Amino acid sequence: MSRQPSGRSLLTDLYQITMAYGYWCQGMHERESVFHLFYRSPPFGGRHVVAAGLVTALEWLDGFALSASDIAFLKSLVGNDNQPLFRDAFLADLSKMRLTIDLDAMREGSIVYPHEPLLRVRGQLWQCQWIETALLNTINFQSLIATKASRIRDIAGNDSVLEFGLRRAQGVDGAMSASRAAYLGGCDATSNVLAGKAYGIPVRGTHAHSWVMSFETERESFNAYADAMPNNCIFLVDTYDTLEGVRHAIEVGTRLRNTGHTMVGIRLDSGDLTSLSIQARMLLDAAGFQDAKIVASNDLDENAMREMKAAGSPIAVWGIGTKLVTAYDQPALGGVYKLAAIQDGNGKLSPRIKLSETAIKTSVPGVLQVRRYYRDSHAVGDILYSELTGPPQSPMAFAPTAKREPHDLSEHDASEDLLVPILRGGQRVATLPSLIESREFARAERLRMSPSTRQLEDAPPYRFGLEERLSQLRENMITQATVTNVESAK
Amino acid sequence: MSRQPSGRSLLTDLYQITMAYGYWCQGMHERESVFHLFYRSPPFGGRHVVAAGLVTALEWLDGFALSASDIAFLKSLVGNDNQPLFRDAFLADLSKMRLTIDLDAMREGSIVYPHEPLLRVRGQLWQCQWIETALLNTINFQSLIATKASRIRDIAGNDSVLEFGLRRAQGVDGAMSASRAAYLGGCDATSNVLAGKAYGIPVRGTHAHSWVMSFETERESFNAYADAMPNNCIFLVDTYDTLEGVRHAIEVGTRLRNTGHTMVGIRLDSGDLTSLSIQARMLLDAAGFQDAKIVASNDLDENAMREMKAAGSPIAVWGIGTKLVTAYDQPALGGVYKLAAIQDGNGKLSPRIKLSETAIKTSVPGVLQVRRYYRDSHAVGDILYSELTGPPQSPMAFAPTAKREPHDLSEHDASEDLLVPILRGGQRVATLPSLIESREFARAERLRMSPSTRQLEDAPPYRFGLEERLSQLRENMITQATVTNVESAK
Repeated sequence: MSRQPSGRSLLTDLYQITMAYGYWCQGMHERESVFHLFYRSPPFGGRHVVAAGLVTALEWLDGFALSASDIAFLKSLVGNDNQPLFRDAFLADLSKMRLTIDLDAMREGSIVYPHEPLLRVRGQLWQCQWIETALLNTINFQSLIATKASRIRDIAGNDSVLEFGLRRAQGVDGAMSASRAAYLGGCDATSNVLAGKAYGIPVRGTHAHSWVMSFETERESFNAYADAMPNNCIFLVDTYDTLEGVRHAIEVGTRLRNTGHTMVGIRLDSGDLTSLSIQARMLLDAAGFQDAKIVASNDLDENAMREMKAAGSPIAVWGIGTKLVTAYDQPALGGVYKLAAIQDGNGKLSPRIKLSETAIKTSVPGVLQVRRYYRDSHAVGDILYSELTGPPQSPMAFAPTAKREPHDLSEHDASEDLLVPILRGGQRVATLPSLIESREFARAERLRMSPSTRQLEDAPPYRFGLEERLSQLRENMITQATVTNVESAK
Repeated sequence: MSRQPSGRSLLTDLYQITMAYGYWCQGMHERESVFHLFYRSPPFGGRHVVAAGLVTALEWLDGFALSASDIAFLKSLVGNDNQPLFRDAFLADLSKMRLTIDLDAMREGSIVYPHEPLLRVRGQLWQCQWIETALLNTINFQSLIATKASRIRDIAGNDSVLEFGLRRAQGVDGAMSASRAAYLGGCDATSNVLAGKAYGIPVRGTHAHSWVMSFETERESFNAYADAMPNNCIFLVDTYDTLEGVRHAIEVGTRLRNTGHTMVGIRLDSGDLTSLSIQARMLLDAAGFQDAKIVASNDLDENAMREMKAAGSPIAVWGIGTKLVTAYDQPALGGVYKLAAIQDGNGKLSPRIKLSETAIKTSVPGVLQVRRYYRDSHAVGDILYSELTGPPQSPMAFAPTAKREPHDLSEHDASEDLLVPILRGGQRVATLPSLIESREFARAERLRMSPSTRQLEDAPPYRFGLEERLSQLRENMITQATVTNVESAK
């Protein structure tokens, strides 16, 4: 809850500030407005996203305050006419701006479907706009990585999953926030020591090829490692010849066993991991090392893991780097942040819609909330409703894009609203769970999904729709906007 | 040159610390060693990488020092036996460790080919290992983005290129360091205000759809924007109907013109950008706005730009976001950091090799330097040589992977060594250029490439090879390692 200026309050797109200036010139900047942060298309061929990044976003919001040097920088900006971009009176008001927004959000670890707000921001127009970019940056990326990690966790089953991505991550914070989100999404540990210190994530790691190469022979290097850490040996066996490396590990493991220690395992980092792991398992078992674990790394993700498991690979610990921390197969989540209501001239909150030639990209107007319905502790469907038009009177979910029969969720035995109050007037009104609690929540939420919805691909669509009056309002607004537009074109 | 502890010195993989501990246990930790940072496979279907990130890496190195809380964290780590992972005497030595390495590096903006060291680190083994991960993180990502930006710049020609990626970047630093590298690689400006302040990059931006939606009509919103910033109007025209939006922009632009101002342009952010830009251009020209620029954004990269330009699109300003700042089509550069020499028992620096079943992944031993040859101010080829075996006696470049005739670079009229001294004994010995100077250097270096090598894809291979004695040494070491391994298997 500290309110130390972060020095990062300028982390926004310039157009947020030029718009703030425009609103200020119009005397509109304090007008109440409502924005939703949501995504339209789920990543990785799945049906859902695991929400993450809220705590990080709140740290940025808590530290929000423009410093004298921030204001000086804005004062230095000039336009095409080489004149100052902003008037001094505006900058003076900016320097006093403090966030007084209301924020409602899904908990980290929640399962989120397309068009459902992960965050709802309500407050002064210029504040809501300013914070857009930092919210998107944080929530988009961490949700993407938590989603990827949850897919890997599903395939891993009871195996261990270690996140090893620091060296290939997109910058320092690309690594730090990926470690955080990967742990939240289901990884067991990270190689990133600073992330371990900062977030309390368990850290893991043994040795690299350079260790082996620093000695005259591989055997000598394994012996030296065993001398230093006799109870923590996972030997990397592929510096020269992998199966030869396994034999050297067994030799040194035998020496450890004879002196009262236990070799933890071996690591494979190149070659055909399935075939090598099967051969290594046989060698280890034949030498009495049934408990020694086989760790594997090298360009792995949930798809490779699934294939390797199907092919009988006995790998028990998965080191996942690049493909997890960069979400290699889809490195960005296309989350957006859209205006959905604004105070009109009469002081009344009035819904707004953004049209698109693509029907699915036309936004949902209002002050939105997501109600999730359950039966036997499994989610059966969601209804998006607006607090302006009211909560569902019946559990019918109207599809937003087509004139179809609504989904009937009458079979439910429980329901809950997913957006919970986090900030009121800029002040925290919720105690947020720790990272490990959010990780546990994410695990529990995955179990509340039907197994079919959780499939890596080709899952049946989840039942989602709009509340009836909201659906009607939206249809009317689309018609009205089109008519207005045609008239304005005359 | 400040030496303020950054608090980020634990930004490393745990195995770097367990190895440091192992070396310390063996009394080997201060042994002199040499590591190279290089990549094997160029991204995006091209032939080269634009080096970037050195300045950021040096900031991390300058701030290196383990704090009391860092040491306390390491002291808290336990192994599989639930005993402390590290002995106190080791942690005491660690707390006193300061970097005394020698660092040689290619300048930011240099053109780098596969297997060529971007960085060479020489110094105490435990120090060289510790810094590996942070170096890789910084250099891999920024070089990737600078490379992507340089490809975009090549296609843009004299058009403006604006980096708009903050909202979809991989975390805060994923955005900040992408903005830096994108500018270095050839972008003209960023939307990220904090990056503008931190790095001196020009910032650009106008307004979003939410601006238009905050007013009753699009026309009203354009008028309000024009009132606030009459000389800086780029109207976003696609909130409702794009060509209708262009007509509204022309109306407001006409009013601006009649009051002594100039509409700068319009922005398209959805739909068929080629067709819409052509139609918009005709409308603008017909209304006398020949100088108004068409800005376009929405999932653009060099490939989309090339197609749109070929199809006659009159877009003059390109806003590039997600696909640039995440390097969407290849979101990681597989840079590695390999031991290539280490002090042996006699105190002599002795080359080391890492074998691989894939010949191309077998490393190059020695203390490496890259000599580039030029003719008529164009680079014609590079020779990798080792300072242990000596510089090229003749300009012959021996292919590292196949028994082929060497490339003969005799036609050269100039040559230079690309790795330059940056740190000696941990102290700076070079004054680094500013970001804008490095950007200019990158531009000049691109012009020193032959146009064919710079092609987006299917470029002819660049002539690269090893110096003759280095090539022979490497062949001998491969043979020797294989023989040793076979003997050790008996």
